[in-house]
Amino acid sequence: MHDVRIGLIGAGRIGSSHARLVAERVPGARLAMVADPRPAAAHALADRFGAEATDDPAALLGGDVDAVVITASSPAHSELIIAAAQAGKAVFCEKPASMTLAEADRSLAAVAEAGVVLQVGFNRRFAPDFRAAHDAVAEGAVGSVQLMRSLSRDPGLADPGSVPPWTIFLQTLIHDFDTLSWLNPGATPVEVYATADALVAPEFKDAGLLDTAVVVITFDNGARAVAEASFSASYGYDVRAEVFGSGGMVTAGDGSRTAMVLRDAAGLHQQTARSDVELLLESYVAELVEFVASVREGRAPYVGGTDARRALSLALASIESVRRAGVVALDPGTGEVR
Amino acid sequence: MHDVRIGLIGAGRIGSSHARLVAERVPGARLAMVADPRPAAAHALADRFGAEATDDPAALLGGDVDAVVITASSPAHSELIIAAAQAGKAVFCEKPASMTLAEADRSLAAVAEAGVVLQVGFNRRFAPDFRAAHDAVAEGAVGSVQLMRSLSRDPGLADPGSVPPWTIFLQTLIHDFDTLSWLNPGATPVEVYATADALVAPEFKDAGLLDTAVVVITFDNGARAVAEASFSASYGYDVRAEVFGSGGMVTAGDGSRTAMVLRDAAGLHQQTARSDVELLLESYVAELVEFVASVREGRAPYVGGTDARRALSLALASIESVRRAGVVALDPGTGEVR
Amino acid sequence: MHDVRIGLIGAGRIGSSHARLVAERVPGARLAMVADPRPAAAHALADRFGAEATDDPAALLGGDVDAVVITASSPAHSELIIAAAQAGKAVFCEKPASMTLAEADRSLAAVAEAGVVLQVGFNRRFAPDFRAAHDAVAEGAVGSVQLMRSLSRDPGLADPGSVPPWTIFLQTLIHDFDTLSWLNPGATPVEVYATADALVAPEFKDAGLLDTAVVVITFDNGARAVAEASFSASYGYDVRAEVFGSGGMVTAGDGSRTAMVLRDAAGLHQQTARSDVELLLESYVAELVEFVASVREGRAPYVGGTDARRALSLALASIESVRRAGVVALDPGTGEVR
Amino acid sequence: MHDVRIGLIGAGRIGSSHARLVAERVPGARLAMVADPRPAAAHALADRFGAEATDDPAALLGGDVDAVVITASSPAHSELIIAAAQAGKAVFCEKPASMTLAEADRSLAAVAEAGVVLQVGFNRRFAPDFRAAHDAVAEGAVGSVQLMRSLSRDPGLADPGSVPPWTIFLQTLIHDFDTLSWLNPGATPVEVYATADALVAPEFKDAGLLDTAVVVITFDNGARAVAEASFSASYGYDVRAEVFGSGGMVTAGDGSRTAMVLRDAAGLHQQTARSDVELLLESYVAELVEFVASVREGRAPYVGGTDARRALSLALASIESVRRAGVVALDPGTGEVR
Repeated sequence: MHDVRIGLIGAGRIGSSHARLVAERVPGARLAMVADPRPAAAHALADRFGAEATDDPAALLGGDVDAVVITASSPAHSELIIAAAQAGKAVFCEKPASMTLAEADRSLAAVAEAGVVLQVGFNRRFAPDFRAAHDAVAEGAVGSVQLMRSLSRDPGLADPGSVPPWTIFLQTLIHDFDTLSWLNPGATPVEVYATADALVAPEFKDAGLLDTAVVVITFDNGARAVAEASFSASYGYDVRAEVFGSGGMVTAGDGSRTAMVLRDAAGLHQQTARSDVELLLESYVAELVEFVASVREGRAPYVGGTDARRALSLALASIESVRRAGVVALDPGTGEVR
Repeated sequence: MHDVRIGLIGAGRIGSSHARLVAERVPGARLAMVADPRPAAAHALADRFGAEATDDPAALLGGDVDAVVITASSPAHSELIIAAAQAGKAVFCEKPASMTLAEADRSLAAVAEAGVVLQVGFNRRFAPDFRAAHDAVAEGAVGSVQLMRSLSRDPGLADPGSVPPWTIFLQTLIHDFDTLSWLNPGATPVEVYATADALVAPEFKDAGLLDTAVVVITFDNGARAVAEASFSASYGYDVRAEVFGSGGMVTAGDGSRTAMVLRDAAGLHQQTARSDVELLLESYVAELVEFVASVREGRAPYVGGTDARRALSLALASIESVRRAGVVALDPGTGEVR
Repeated sequence: MHDVRIGLIGAGRIGSSHARLVAERVPGARLAMVADPRPAAAHALADRFGAEATDDPAALLGGDVDAVVITASSPAHSELIIAAAQAGKAVFCEKPASMTLAEADRSLAAVAEAGVVLQVGFNRRFAPDFRAAHDAVAEGAVGSVQLMRSLSRDPGLADPGSVPPWTIFLQTLIHDFDTLSWLNPGATPVEVYATADALVAPEFKDAGLLDTAVVVITFDNGARAVAEASFSASYGYDVRAEVFGSGGMVTAGDGSRTAMVLRDAAGLHQQTARSDVELLLESYVAELVEFVASVREGRAPYVGGTDARRALSLALASIESVRRAGVVALDPGTGEVR
Repeated sequence: MHDVRIGLIGAGRIGSSHARLVAERVPGARLAMVADPRPAAAHALADRFGAEATDDPAALLGGDVDAVVITASSPAHSELIIAAAQAGKAVFCEKPASMTLAEADRSLAAVAEAGVVLQVGFNRRFAPDFRAAHDAVAEGAVGSVQLMRSLSRDPGLADPGSVPPWTIFLQTLIHDFDTLSWLNPGATPVEVYATADALVAPEFKDAGLLDTAVVVITFDNGARAVAEASFSASYGYDVRAEVFGSGGMVTAGDGSRTAMVLRDAAGLHQQTARSDVELLLESYVAELVEFVASVREGRAPYVGGTDARRALSLALASIESVRRAGVVALDPGTGEVR
């Protein structure tokens, strides 16, 4: 088969990173087009890797590409998935793949009807230590799951004023919600309690910015899971998971930059990773490699649209729990808050 | 000053351990009397260390002892504290020091009136790594506290049928509640959410046995704390704490038995501590050394009755949250559930 | 500039690995030709990545390639470097770049005369933790270097009978010799003591196979360095370094496969890396990226021919020390054993 | 049995530490007498723990003590052991127990003739991680021993001018020599190479002060062991061991003060232990507990005179290797340099 020709929609920070990885790190793929409503951004990124540029996503979808990588702003994701599916393109979409369960259902239906590949950007599933933890759980190494933890800590809020409301749930904790579901295979969430605050930038609380959050999820197998996020990790980017069960515990996540250790008169020291791209670079590569492999092999990717819908339902339930200042129950069938 | 003469009330598992430590590990103290309603138990323990035995705690309180160590069953603690205080004895009491806030208030009043020392058995405060974490927080190393975690995992339930209801909150998580308050100095809890289940021994759930619990506490400084406990830690005894703030994070707790590491064809291995006494032996010693020092120096011990009352209020709030299946608010003045 | 066209000479285990990495992991390069005296091997590898094949290295050197990667058998390295340099090709050569100091001098002269790039495959210099250790030393974080350690442990000897004599010094410890020199910048070795044995496969000792070795190097700045190697690491591939100085210590090397940790009834467990390619994959990539960058930028690579000569001189001194069963002194100017 | 009455000879730094531990940490023992030729030192230490004082060791040996702890200056050890044995006292002696093999033989003979207990202060044998490593080796967890390492790094030389020549071998590395023999059970050293220098305080080199040393020992089972010492560990006190064999590797030694970890804007940090007494406190206690137990039970202690003689023979061989600037062979029967 010829190289998978990839069109990328959205030339922002994560779009630029994905473009570079497609161009340099994913065998069997090449970056063919870049679309961004800002023509200069589209051209700058496309030129860097010898791709075509356009300011019109529809032109990209109508162009000579096999697959699209959607890194546009979140509210546009769902419609772009639908349009791409209708154009017969395989789709890799950054999270969240949609903002409402209704949107999720519509885009999943479009993807199913078109019979195209849909992968969502839950990169932690491709981190070697998270994957090893998953495999240990799946092999029964921890017995039946009873207590879980997943956390995301981001080094900082460069511009708090620009962060949309509920970002901490829809953009950040959505990773943890997927991780927790993935590490508790077969279980369904039935109850959610969330509490959140603006501790980093309290002056933006009225504008809806929450920067610190804790969520407790009760699953139907009795497992309790804690998801936790903060936007003020002074020591770098930190993602971790813990699964405790009747037979043991696995942990994943180690924010150290390298295995180098320095001891001096002030004690022992180790460097910590400073950004998501630094900490999770190989995971970003691996998820794109998986996407291209699933396109080439015409099979479902390791993480898809139903995973995204389930993680979204937990984000929406968390938001509702904060709004109600209380516990919310989920319909196990639909994932909707009762 | 002559050696502090200690009378121990309650010759059970932890009483026997404390008796041995007083006799062998605490300079400036000696075990003088042991009281237990079971005369054989009292004599066996007393004889081992050359102490007197009695089956009547009142006889011990009227005897030639300077201080008492209360390791009787929990419901008796509060009345024993009051009686000891009225007898002018210094008091070390295992947790929980009382079962209700009213009891706590009565015993605190008796202690204050008698002007005696009261220390409560929150041994984690004396674990070197927990103490180092506390000192780092107190010195501002993590900035303002935003997210916290404390957990207790116990290797097993030898006899689930004998465990009183709510033990996981009143006996186990009470350690975590104290730890979290101690590591968030000056902050007051305002809201509690608890969820618990019988996952280890579900057949005892109807009898009130809960073996797995998660609690989220919101403090008035905005910090969110998660306390977590389980009675099914297959890998040993595990207590840990984490404090995350605007300037950094400290962690304490490492369940390894020693620093020895073995690598073989199956990978890397380390032994884990199997019991609380193994993991926390030096902490048990250190709290008794502190007690004797506070008696000799006529000063307040490092951890006392108000700390115990505060931890109890969080245990009671957690129980109420489970009963209501919802979030409960606390009166910041009284610690009572609203 | 167009992609750097690379010809690879030697389609064995490490040649195949390098071919794949050039084809899939090195932006700005492409695998153009593969030469191997075994035509089937050359074709199989070339076909996999769309390259040309030949059984004649001279044909490759005369072909349309910008640079060569030499992964032939060690005794051929030096003559291939010379031929490649005379053909005006940039050269990446696996270690050892030569088998004698005279060969090394001849090949360095040829490279200098041709003005081509020469890089040698000391991949540990590109391992992130080793690099971080080096940078810390270079920045003075450990003060003046006093004690050093570098070790190589290989999981096994599949076919002891096929291992040439002195392999442990010329092929394995040569990495450690380079590492130690690199981590003690500006210092010159003046004395070497080596001791070695056949503990894994004693039946091959008479054939010259040594599988366990310890070397002590004294540098002219007083630092003592220990290099250690074994071919029987049951727990996987293990390379580590330690630099201790007047101001502190740095360590590098951690054989764990991922950061995942499992605790179960048998204690704590972590997986270990099983092969050099697993442990050092990113280092192999990084050294090839550096090679291509130095070719494109027309500059000296990070590690070159004089580094290789210095490491070789320590390997030869070690061999002489074993032969003499005693300490040998080195001429600081020539690196020759006195 | 009544408490073991202990007389301590030598009220210096380590003597004061042992006196305190006997008085406060060793059940079944009490400090009865202290002897030191400096009467003020003897009285100060004795008074602290309610013991008698004398400036005459002979008076102590003639006094009412069951056992002696010898912490006098090293050259006096051997004669004191002999005198104590002849007085029928059990003996705990700090290392080195003697300064020559002839002295060692004489004192061992006196001990044997008197039938008294003799323990030597190799405290690492009582460190929990070293003990766990030993047990793993003894149980065959690493297979046959092939490569070993033991190191001692001391934080500093307060007064280099007062350090006797060869201290690094006779006082410091003697610990490592014992550790390596203990961890390679049944093997006999046959060859030693040592190299040493004055890198910390070069101005004292002419006076015989060596502060940095590396020793390689070849055992008759083929194992090669590296012992390493320095007096300039800026980061604290550091003792470690590593045993590598056909089936795996064990490591012991972790210089961290506690398990507390701090992460902040500068990365990850851990405190390190600053002195031998801080790092090895529990080992000092445990060796004294073992001594008292062996006295009470009338049995040989865990580490005795022949262990001390063997470690001494390696120290003397190292000194001879430095003097000769070459490898020395040992007589496997006598441990003497050939």
